[in-house]
Amino acid sequence: MDRPLLRLNPGADRRVKAGHPWAFSNEIVMTQAARALPAGCVVRLEGDDGVKHGAWHFNPHSLIAARFLDPDPAVPCDAGWFRTRLAACLALRQRLFDAPFYRLVHAEADGLPGLVVDRYGDALAVQANTAGMDRALPDILAALRELLDPRVVVARNDSAVRKLEGLEEGVALLHGTDGTATVEEAGLAFPVDLLGGQKTGWFFDQRPNRLMVARLAKGCTVLDAFCHLGGFGLAAAQAGAAAVTLLDRSEHALDLAMQAATRAGFADRVTPLKAEALEHLERMAASGRRFDVVIADPPAFAKTRKDIPAALRGYAKLARLAATVTSPGGILFIASCSHHVGPADFAEAVAWGVHRAHRRGRILASVGAGPDHPVHPALPESAYLKGQLFALD
Amino acid sequence: MDRPLLRLNPGADRRVKAGHPWAFSNEIVMTQAARALPAGCVVRLEGDDGVKHGAWHFNPHSLIAARFLDPDPAVPCDAGWFRTRLAACLALRQRLFDAPFYRLVHAEADGLPGLVVDRYGDALAVQANTAGMDRALPDILAALRELLDPRVVVARNDSAVRKLEGLEEGVALLHGTDGTATVEEAGLAFPVDLLGGQKTGWFFDQRPNRLMVARLAKGCTVLDAFCHLGGFGLAAAQAGAAAVTLLDRSEHALDLAMQAATRAGFADRVTPLKAEALEHLERMAASGRRFDVVIADPPAFAKTRKDIPAALRGYAKLARLAATVTSPGGILFIASCSHHVGPADFAEAVAWGVHRAHRRGRILASVGAGPDHPVHPALPESAYLKGQLFALD
Repeated sequence: MDRPLLRLNPGADRRVKAGHPWAFSNEIVMTQAARALPAGCVVRLEGDDGVKHGAWHFNPHSLIAARFLDPDPAVPCDAGWFRTRLAACLALRQRLFDAPFYRLVHAEADGLPGLVVDRYGDALAVQANTAGMDRALPDILAALRELLDPRVVVARNDSAVRKLEGLEEGVALLHGTDGTATVEEAGLAFPVDLLGGQKTGWFFDQRPNRLMVARLAKGCTVLDAFCHLGGFGLAAAQAGAAAVTLLDRSEHALDLAMQAATRAGFADRVTPLKAEALEHLERMAASGRRFDVVIADPPAFAKTRKDIPAALRGYAKLARLAATVTSPGGILFIASCSHHVGPADFAEAVAWGVHRAHRRGRILASVGAGPDHPVHPALPESAYLKGQLFALD
Repeated sequence: MDRPLLRLNPGADRRVKAGHPWAFSNEIVMTQAARALPAGCVVRLEGDDGVKHGAWHFNPHSLIAARFLDPDPAVPCDAGWFRTRLAACLALRQRLFDAPFYRLVHAEADGLPGLVVDRYGDALAVQANTAGMDRALPDILAALRELLDPRVVVARNDSAVRKLEGLEEGVALLHGTDGTATVEEAGLAFPVDLLGGQKTGWFFDQRPNRLMVARLAKGCTVLDAFCHLGGFGLAAAQAGAAAVTLLDRSEHALDLAMQAATRAGFADRVTPLKAEALEHLERMAASGRRFDVVIADPPAFAKTRKDIPAALRGYAKLARLAATVTSPGGILFIASCSHHVGPADFAEAVAWGVHRAHRRGRILASVGAGPDHPVHPALPESAYLKGQLFALD
């Protein structure tokens, strides 16, 4: 077969043999021919000992040079191959969820490195975050259309990680005529903007955590800080919260959230507040404003490793302010989606912030993303989402 | 007041000032008078700088010499004080659960260091794991009776940690005429033996995890290894599993589990199997026996720090065998309740075991104990329960 063969350097096969789905550029024999291969092509990978490690996506310009696709080195990685993988992803989600709203594909953990697909009923948002998946997009699209016959497919290729792969960033409508969609969750219908919203439009990862918090919010006053489309706050309203304040800097996001509240018939119990959340929390803390249930779910504070110390100070400050505005006996949920901040460090920063607010309490749950965001066993550090649920005294 | 005053050594107040609920014996000025105090008495604790750190339980014979009770150094720690604390524990559980079956008190995290109370409707199982709580048992009992008017109270003071406090081990009926109780969970009624069963009779900590696994078990064959009273397996049967095998070394536990299955009307779908679980898994792996859903929830493999390496090898072996007996496309839930094994090390051992079984898969969820087992923010290492849910290829 004419599929290129790449070889791991002597002694560089330990991780791959242990099931790790990546090979780094310094682990691969980078011949002139290897360097000249097109970014995103499929290669065969073998060890120095001749052991065959299967078929991989290859990008000579990326630090993560090879990503595992299939144990069979000769397997055709065509639309049919993608359809088989996607069908397995679909079968798992259908086992996990009653309705067609979920992350359908979560990259390496689903055997499709660098590919993310979110499903909103008949609308799909796709992220191809590697050269391999970018190159394979026509096959992926063909497979998705065969499998799900979607009304809309949007490419959300505006993630900064594409730069590391030498890819352009951009958003495009791949199929259909508009980028609007609806997500159903917690008995509510949320309008989602697939083309203009954050990331792929909706954060499915927090779904079980939204339900967990909502169950504790009956009859309560609720503050949803960094609310985006109001997922936490409106789930709480649906569960019987007395009054919900949605706090976000984005007027567009608040507009969509209030559309959902109006559609659900409880807009009178929901107050949108357009402001920088941290600054506004500071004002609320100072003015004595208090809520029975507080959610603080900010965007990532650490975009790179060097941001970690500042991010931890940021989480401690956020925890201090959020705990301060939580009523005695109240519930606080605080989360971090920073890949670079580990769960132990996050927990320590939050504990410190709660202590600095002169509050005592207990952690009821330490949670991660929902099961449609699985984790590859060899990539535990990819479990980016960390949430802590407190019951404060 | 005549409550003894103890002082922290110079420079030894950093942790206490940061909200840690323990002071170690080498952090306290151990005068002759301090050494002579009765184990479990209440003391005032102050820093070398004169800062008052409140009221603490003190045990001059324990490495953890002082345990935080209350910020007010003069508060009377009597039945009334216990009733207030216990009422707060009760209010939180009533907010979390619809029915009176839960861990009512989880020690430090609930502001009651060393005290554990499990509630089975009108029956209570109490563990006093420190000299302070052992000494306070009459007050605790009075408070519990005033608050809940229980039919039965059992003292399960047979935990090995009591030795560290210089306490005798033993089981006793403190109130009522027998140690039988029933726990309702997942729509089932499980008979529980408060006097003769493991620990306090039932492992409430796994409740949300049992429901999580059961939801994936409809129509499946299920193996519940180390099943104890069958909590995982019978919840799966209740959720529509086709056939459930309960595997445990204890005939008494299996008898109680089959009583629950009979009462639920699905004993014909449940097979008890009395055997050493690891040995039997090995036989099943060799003979080709396979299940769609496998649960492996063993007792702690590491009782002390020095057991950690052997425990990690044990978890890797258990993961290898459990993954081997899981059908293609099946679900595997594996857990560790070893305090001394951290979540990252456990995850690595499990990943290695799954890899050695030549299985690929993804982690759908990494979970801990339910919210009635809260964690003190300054004692993150007390989050002893770690579970991983896999979907295998």
